Amino acid sequence: MAKELTSREENYSQWYNDLVVKAGLADSSAVRGCMVIKPYGYAIWEKMRDQLDRMFKETGHQNAYFPLFIPKSFFSREASHVEGFAKECAVVTHYRLKNDPSGKGVVVDEEARLEEELVVRPTSETIIWNTYKNWIQSYRDLPILVNQWANVVRWEMRTRLFLRTTEFLWQEGHTAHATAEEAMEETIKMIGVYETFARNFMALPVIRGAKTANERFAGAVETLSIEAMMQDGKALQSGTSHFLGQNFAKAFDVKFATREGGLDYVWASSWGVSTRLMGALIMAHSDDNGLVLPPKLAPVHAVIVPIYQKLEQLPLIAEKTAPLKKQLEAAGLTVTFDDRDTLKPGFKFAEHEMKGIPVRVAVGPRDLDNNTVEIARRDTLEKKVYPFDQAGEVILKLMDEIQQNIYNKALKFREEHTFITDSYQTMQELLDKGGFVMAHWDGTTETEERIKEETKATIRCIPMDAAEEPGRCILTGKPSARRVIFARAY
Amino acid sequence: MAKELTSREENYSQWYNDLVVKAGLADSSAVRGCMVIKPYGYAIWEKMRDQLDRMFKETGHQNAYFPLFIPKSFFSREASHVEGFAKECAVVTHYRLKNDPSGKGVVVDEEARLEEELVVRPTSETIIWNTYKNWIQSYRDLPILVNQWANVVRWEMRTRLFLRTTEFLWQEGHTAHATAEEAMEETIKMIGVYETFARNFMALPVIRGAKTANERFAGAVETLSIEAMMQDGKALQSGTSHFLGQNFAKAFDVKFATREGGLDYVWASSWGVSTRLMGALIMAHSDDNGLVLPPKLAPVHAVIVPIYQKLEQLPLIAEKTAPLKKQLEAAGLTVTFDDRDTLKPGFKFAEHEMKGIPVRVAVGPRDLDNNTVEIARRDTLEKKVYPFDQAGEVILKLMDEIQQNIYNKALKFREEHTFITDSYQTMQELLDKGGFVMAHWDGTTETEERIKEETKATIRCIPMDAAEEPGRCILTGKPSARRVIFARAY
Repeated sequence: MAKELTSREENYSQWYNDLVVKAGLADSSAVRGCMVIKPYGYAIWEKMRDQLDRMFKETGHQNAYFPLFIPKSFFSREASHVEGFAKECAVVTHYRLKNDPSGKGVVVDEEARLEEELVVRPTSETIIWNTYKNWIQSYRDLPILVNQWANVVRWEMRTRLFLRTTEFLWQEGHTAHATAEEAMEETIKMIGVYETFARNFMALPVIRGAKTANERFAGAVETLSIEAMMQDGKALQSGTSHFLGQNFAKAFDVKFATREGGLDYVWASSWGVSTRLMGALIMAHSDDNGLVLPPKLAPVHAVIVPIYQKLEQLPLIAEKTAPLKKQLEAAGLTVTFDDRDTLKPGFKFAEHEMKGIPVRVAVGPRDLDNNTVEIARRDTLEKKVYPFDQAGEVILKLMDEIQQNIYNKALKFREEHTFITDSYQTMQELLDKGGFVMAHWDGTTETEERIKEETKATIRCIPMDAAEEPGRCILTGKPSARRVIFARAY
Repeated sequence: MAKELTSREENYSQWYNDLVVKAGLADSSAVRGCMVIKPYGYAIWEKMRDQLDRMFKETGHQNAYFPLFIPKSFFSREASHVEGFAKECAVVTHYRLKNDPSGKGVVVDEEARLEEELVVRPTSETIIWNTYKNWIQSYRDLPILVNQWANVVRWEMRTRLFLRTTEFLWQEGHTAHATAEEAMEETIKMIGVYETFARNFMALPVIRGAKTANERFAGAVETLSIEAMMQDGKALQSGTSHFLGQNFAKAFDVKFATREGGLDYVWASSWGVSTRLMGALIMAHSDDNGLVLPPKLAPVHAVIVPIYQKLEQLPLIAEKTAPLKKQLEAAGLTVTFDDRDTLKPGFKFAEHEMKGIPVRVAVGPRDLDNNTVEIARRDTLEKKVYPFDQAGEVILKLMDEIQQNIYNKALKFREEHTFITDSYQTMQELLDKGGFVMAHWDGTTETEERIKEETKATIRCIPMDAAEEPGRCILTGKPSARRVIFARAY
């Protein structure tokens, strides 16, 4: 089974596609650019969603739900938003089909044309701020800290499972505040929540930073992002948090009576992560044998595989391992006993590796005699025999170890592929090999775009956690206050 | 605040609308027929969803996600399905907007017309069975027990918050089986899950039964439903479970290699409940003071209201009640301390009643002196003073009592408004007053439709749990094997 996967070396892109399909995570659908998220992929997404939801609630947010459809005219209200979002989108023009008069199938009923077309939401700032207008009168109604879990649609020309699909699942937080400071604080807080989630749950080291003006969300005053490095050295933007200033409040006329008795427009933030995180998770950790999952997001933590020549040995192994299964489950793990009797152990091993189950426990007749088990960890593929009585403790300890090891490996990889240079030629060579390049930039869109044209790399972010360091722009030699991160990106 | 609610007696329909808005559950939106589910309403829905999800998983189901869009031609594949669902729906015809050449706003780009129109899913049988075709080859791939939480769109002409909206949230289970018996068993099992959920969590007694041929889901061989009675005596269909036979397998050519070496079409079930359950929950239990929530679905179980003349008394009350709050939270309840200092206690009481918080605890200076609290229960509006040290125990016990009392009340109401008659004239009079009428029916669609025309009542279901009882049709006098339930319905 492992043989079926294209190796990363051979074709990284094909490896990814193979993996997503063969691990049973997702599939293309009959609808262009839309995916089917299969049960195993959805179970991982559920774990991510539930943890993020807990973190949002711990930071004072509530969930709500806003309409899927947005009147076309709403997009024109915020000048830069319309440029960014209203263009490549799914447009609902009719509300009825009728039997084809020629007798075959159904056709659009031209008499059921909508007066105003509806856009399937690509993001919900407009419909939400149009709603907030009714919710906000005074400073006492603020802040509003609302999040929505929803599906959104952006008509992408080139799609890839999880990474870029026409429809995807996401959450979008939309907050309203009385002051710019508070809205900015929220913007920073939430990129911090994303960073924490990526680090502690996805085992993914990410860099927090500000986007350049050119790469900002359409309608934002400031966009923060977290950027992760994939195993091909390319960057993957994994979450964004926007300070929207008063742009949407002005577009939808949302004013509030201030504490001081005045009237002011409301300040806003919005922030989101999507099923794209699944792509980041898969690409960052997995290997040529399949998926590698951090235990904190694994739907199944351990699988027990009975090895037997004669079918009558199976119940003996089941009986022997039942207390171990119970012990692990009591500790909060999900454990399966793989007793499918039409498959050979080798096939099962390959399948469990493909699916990234963190720990595999193999028990054969000799183990019964010796009171031992063989424990294999997915991240390093190491196998080791332990006395049976130690198995529970070993496996529980492995959960933490694997979680930490995957993170360390990804961090080490990123560090080894992050370069500092002041030479434009060196930068070009480094980018060809893959990785992040920390270089000086003069702060102009013009320079940014010329570098992009010549190197295919974009400025991923201006890191928040890096020290100031005066220097000269790698292209123009003009003064620069700090290094930014250049990389090719997904 | 309570005064603002139209009374049920005065105008039941207006009472419902007022309540949904004033309790902060939902609002109409700028998009025709689409609602905004506000944080408090969504918190209740989340509790329902999470509990149902647990019950689905306990019965062996997994979640997955299928595309929002369905190619128009898919609907024509199943003959009766197209009649039922492809007609009143949102149709995506274009994938791009462009700047209006006349300079104002954006218009549909006629060059970006889809080759085949896409329908926003009204239900997902077609796209899912088109997918299952790839998942199923042999009996070893069966059963497939998959559920999806999603939004769906049906272009309704007359909409009401939660009860009938153009877009709504729901879950749809779609299962595939090797035999008709197994699919039918699943269909029955899931209507049972819905019945259990309604009874134990919504405190809602429901009747399980089969729909008549006329009222079946478009494409189903058999439709089971749960029917609840609202306080105006009307029925509300609260969940359905369909045995689909091989209809969709045939429409999408899904065959499997049987254990015996043959080839057969796959058998199917589908089942769903939606945000309509919110409407049932609200309408079944609430009163003229506002929402009445069963504790098991209440986002907040108890609110502590400090009563004070001077602001310096507030910290004393806060300090006194903190251990009580902690005790209740440790027992799994959500408790708030309402220290908003710009509102009077009376206003707060009315608001908490409007929101249906099951228990209110009031503590004033005299209570501090006497070491007492006043505990009010929302369902009966009874107030009683208890020694402070008993408060925790009393409140925990009240959770069970209120849950049970709400159920008993709803059951009593239904029993008092369920009538057995063999006289058509009596039935008409009873239906005018409101309630369920158990009457004989000759089993024909013709009779069913004539009764509907003359009484505005439909056959809600042929109850599963009622005994056979031969008789004569209430309209035609033809023989009948058992009584069915007639009622006007939402």
